[in-house]
Amino acid sequence: MRLSRFHLHTTKETPADAELASHRLMLRAGMIRKLAAGLYTWSPLGLRVLRKVEAVVREEMDRAGAIELQLPTIQPKELWEETGRWEKFGGQLLKIRDRKEAEYCYSPTAEEAVTDFARQELGSYKQLPVNFYQIHTKFRDEIRPRFGVMRAREFLMKDAYSFHVSDADLAREYENMKAAYTRVFTRLGLRFRAVQADSGAIGGDASQEFHVLADSGEDALAFSTGSDYAANVEAAQAAEPPPRPAAAEALRKVDTPTQKTCEDVAALMGIALQRTVKSVAVMGTGGFVLALVRGDHTVNEIKLGKVAGLADYRPATEAEIAQHLGSEPGFLGPVGPKAPIKVVADREVAAMADFVVGANERGFHLAGVNWGRDLPEPDLVADIRNVVEGDRAADGGEIRLARGIEVGHVFQLGRKYSEAMGFTVLDETGKAAVPAMGCYGIGVSRIVAAAIEQNHDEAGIVWPVPMAPWAVAVCVINPKKDAAVDAAAEALLADLQAAGLDAVLDDRGLRPGAMFADIELIGIPHRVVVSERGLAAGTFEYRARTATEAESLDRAQLLEKLRG
Amino acid sequence: MRLSRFHLHTTKETPADAELASHRLMLRAGMIRKLAAGLYTWSPLGLRVLRKVEAVVREEMDRAGAIELQLPTIQPKELWEETGRWEKFGGQLLKIRDRKEAEYCYSPTAEEAVTDFARQELGSYKQLPVNFYQIHTKFRDEIRPRFGVMRAREFLMKDAYSFHVSDADLAREYENMKAAYTRVFTRLGLRFRAVQADSGAIGGDASQEFHVLADSGEDALAFSTGSDYAANVEAAQAAEPPPRPAAAEALRKVDTPTQKTCEDVAALMGIALQRTVKSVAVMGTGGFVLALVRGDHTVNEIKLGKVAGLADYRPATEAEIAQHLGSEPGFLGPVGPKAPIKVVADREVAAMADFVVGANERGFHLAGVNWGRDLPEPDLVADIRNVVEGDRAADGGEIRLARGIEVGHVFQLGRKYSEAMGFTVLDETGKAAVPAMGCYGIGVSRIVAAAIEQNHDEAGIVWPVPMAPWAVAVCVINPKKDAAVDAAAEALLADLQAAGLDAVLDDRGLRPGAMFADIELIGIPHRVVVSERGLAAGTFEYRARTATEAESLDRAQLLEKLRG
Repeated sequence: MRLSRFHLHTTKETPADAELASHRLMLRAGMIRKLAAGLYTWSPLGLRVLRKVEAVVREEMDRAGAIELQLPTIQPKELWEETGRWEKFGGQLLKIRDRKEAEYCYSPTAEEAVTDFARQELGSYKQLPVNFYQIHTKFRDEIRPRFGVMRAREFLMKDAYSFHVSDADLAREYENMKAAYTRVFTRLGLRFRAVQADSGAIGGDASQEFHVLADSGEDALAFSTGSDYAANVEAAQAAEPPPRPAAAEALRKVDTPTQKTCEDVAALMGIALQRTVKSVAVMGTGGFVLALVRGDHTVNEIKLGKVAGLADYRPATEAEIAQHLGSEPGFLGPVGPKAPIKVVADREVAAMADFVVGANERGFHLAGVNWGRDLPEPDLVADIRNVVEGDRAADGGEIRLARGIEVGHVFQLGRKYSEAMGFTVLDETGKAAVPAMGCYGIGVSRIVAAAIEQNHDEAGIVWPVPMAPWAVAVCVINPKKDAAVDAAAEALLADLQAAGLDAVLDDRGLRPGAMFADIELIGIPHRVVVSERGLAAGTFEYRARTATEAESLDRAQLLEKLRG
Repeated sequence: MRLSRFHLHTTKETPADAELASHRLMLRAGMIRKLAAGLYTWSPLGLRVLRKVEAVVREEMDRAGAIELQLPTIQPKELWEETGRWEKFGGQLLKIRDRKEAEYCYSPTAEEAVTDFARQELGSYKQLPVNFYQIHTKFRDEIRPRFGVMRAREFLMKDAYSFHVSDADLAREYENMKAAYTRVFTRLGLRFRAVQADSGAIGGDASQEFHVLADSGEDALAFSTGSDYAANVEAAQAAEPPPRPAAAEALRKVDTPTQKTCEDVAALMGIALQRTVKSVAVMGTGGFVLALVRGDHTVNEIKLGKVAGLADYRPATEAEIAQHLGSEPGFLGPVGPKAPIKVVADREVAAMADFVVGANERGFHLAGVNWGRDLPEPDLVADIRNVVEGDRAADGGEIRLARGIEVGHVFQLGRKYSEAMGFTVLDETGKAAVPAMGCYGIGVSRIVAAAIEQNHDEAGIVWPVPMAPWAVAVCVINPKKDAAVDAAAEALLADLQAAGLDAVLDDRGLRPGAMFADIELIGIPHRVVVSERGLAAGTFEYRARTATEAESLDRAQLLEKLRG
């Protein structure tokens, strides 16, 4: 490949709306161009990277025994109604009417379509297990598309769906997919972690996310220093707190005229924030609920939503609060409500003694509060908070937080879709059985952006070799001036290609500074310069993208270095 | 690859709505499954074929110097309004509103999107010529989707768009693309022809179609026995007719009480159909026009539409006919109209003497009609008819007709899109110049169906080797019964793969009859049977898909035969 016959178009400007480094750098490198909000053209340069990622994903899916097919991007409403998702999926589902007014959507995922295929194709347990996958365009009508291809509306996704006669076999394939994903991200040269995800109604070990680690990541992840434990903060659990100490203080009313937050109250009283309790008023199916977390903690909405009766909870209104507690926000607490309420305490709160809560009276808090003495034991004790840095982990280690970009998700779906769509196979005894399903996604186009978030510097992108548009750039100084230089560059290109290296010749004839800036910006891992002076000395100037200095190498040294 | 770990699902039933052989066979072989009208899932088997076609197309586009990119499938209305195609494209354009009520379409082609990319990327003549292509999903909202993937709504297309500083350079790239297309269809092993297409407003040599020849083809193609000349009947031209003979008969009125067609009139009069003239009444921008073709000919609507004033012609109503000719359909003619009309005569009609036309009077025709004597010379003489088998071609040969399936189209667009979208580059003199454009399409998924239309028999599909899901099937009789048989089959598979052959092991354990029927149905070019009996004799049973008999070959003979 010669850059003079390729289309490379780098720019210096950074668009104002590009907040993330990956977005800016993909635009500056000319990898993508915006067509409309959340819709990007992949330029020849960008597509080379995307295809490399796609190829690794495909190879590892094939190696894992999954079988590729392709489902239509446009799918009929009737199918989505079978599972109730036509309504439930929400605004991200792009709904379409055709010329005959029939309704369709642009597939954001394909559980329904693949289950429809499966129920036409699979009739016997003998045909299971099977894992179908596709690598195909998806669309999610993001309300605020941004960050370039990180959160585009149209994107490339690998989605796989497996079918099993038993939960045990589903669990086996789930592990098989986790291993395949680990191979994918390892081969791509990315620093990543598999973390426990919120597993919704299924519980247990049934859902894990794969995150590329990057400070700019949208997700907070929790790791333990004591083991492999890692989880999305949405799902991360700390260790059980130590047992509740005995009450030592008497209940007393504290004057807090303008102190409405735990922070302000603790500061006024000169006590640690950890001694205070935050009261969050919500409405569940059973009525008014007061959720309590320690003053330095925050409520984890997903965990709270798993409490019985709170699956679809909403914040209580001021009127509802006044009705149940007789007070206004800022001074709420679980002691002496006006009307019956339910109290859900975080495990940490349930283990506290002598704590501080709102007095349900404007301008006052209560201190020295103790369970069983000043108020009844909580109606329910549960883990309803977000973990924080320094929490003790269940394995005895300490919780550390990091940020990540979700690029993969594996999920044991169970029988949710197969049951809703009436998909059965005959089991060994000849009876109809509903297969268990797993689903496994990889955000192929998102990986490109995530890799850049993780790997860039002031000069531009720093690709891991497996994702780079080319592994090596052979830069010719003053091409078409000196036939010997051109010939040496061509010969080197041929040598590199013969050695299995994906090399490109920069024969565009730019000034060296501009040429080198381009090659750095687009993140080529290895740069080799062919010049008249080097040729006279029998050497090439070599510089790794990550190195600060160039070195002079002869052909043999260079090939040895690049073959790695 | 082992079929026991693949998903193969053939069926015996033929769906009632599957009219074409390719549609029936793709369903029976399990290559596709219908999701909704015009929307098909490509099964693992079907996708293998589709990907082989895609790979050949990509290789030849790359070889021709085109550069791959990828445009979004969802494209904003504003872009399509720049060229007026938001309205003009018609009902096939699937229009979409997103959650913010912004309007988009699903790309049926991408001239607008690629020109938008080009105007962002290309600023100088030095960046030209360039040819961008993509292989990506398209959607056309066919009013009557049918024939499986032959006329599906969602389909896979290769579309390329080139940009040039001059018409001469566009013509050069047009020839380059024609050569690439010829390589594509040749490599795929298809019998095909490049034919002149209707070139719309551009005229000349500016548009050619590539057709796979098949009796079931939707398009009629005309070839000359005298040269390479080939054209879609839409565009095919016959030679100029010989000069008009002198008038020999007197004008007379013929009693044709119920004879309304040329056929009936000729039969009643006992004359050749070629002596009669058909009058077709239409309305153009200038008013009423009577188009005349010989009784045995038919009007070519595209040719008629090129006559000045008839670009958007429509049939005349009975009222308009009565007003201008004073008669009713069935008895119309150009002699003695009631109101002024314009007469457009086909070249053949203009060269006739002593002909028969309707008398503009119910129940009567006129015979012995002659130009210049009984009616004025035609207002316009033009080629407005379809060629027929046996016509004399311009090159002196004879016209032959055949049927084809359009799978490719190359087009010199000129400056239609670049001008409408205000795309200019600076030319060598520093002035803004509008680049000329070409576009080049291949119906990748349609090729799969077209190949089957051309290559099938009673037993199923007969793939050309380059398109076959596998080139060779190694069929094991009673797998897992005799370890030596299994081992011999595995060893043969390894040998074949080492020889570069795409081979698959049929280890499903079906009875031989069922196994062979599957392998024939899915069209595998070469079948090798490994059995206990053969192993004892040191031979394999080999049969080509196109052969009627099997033959016994030892390993060396077999490998020699398969290596071709």
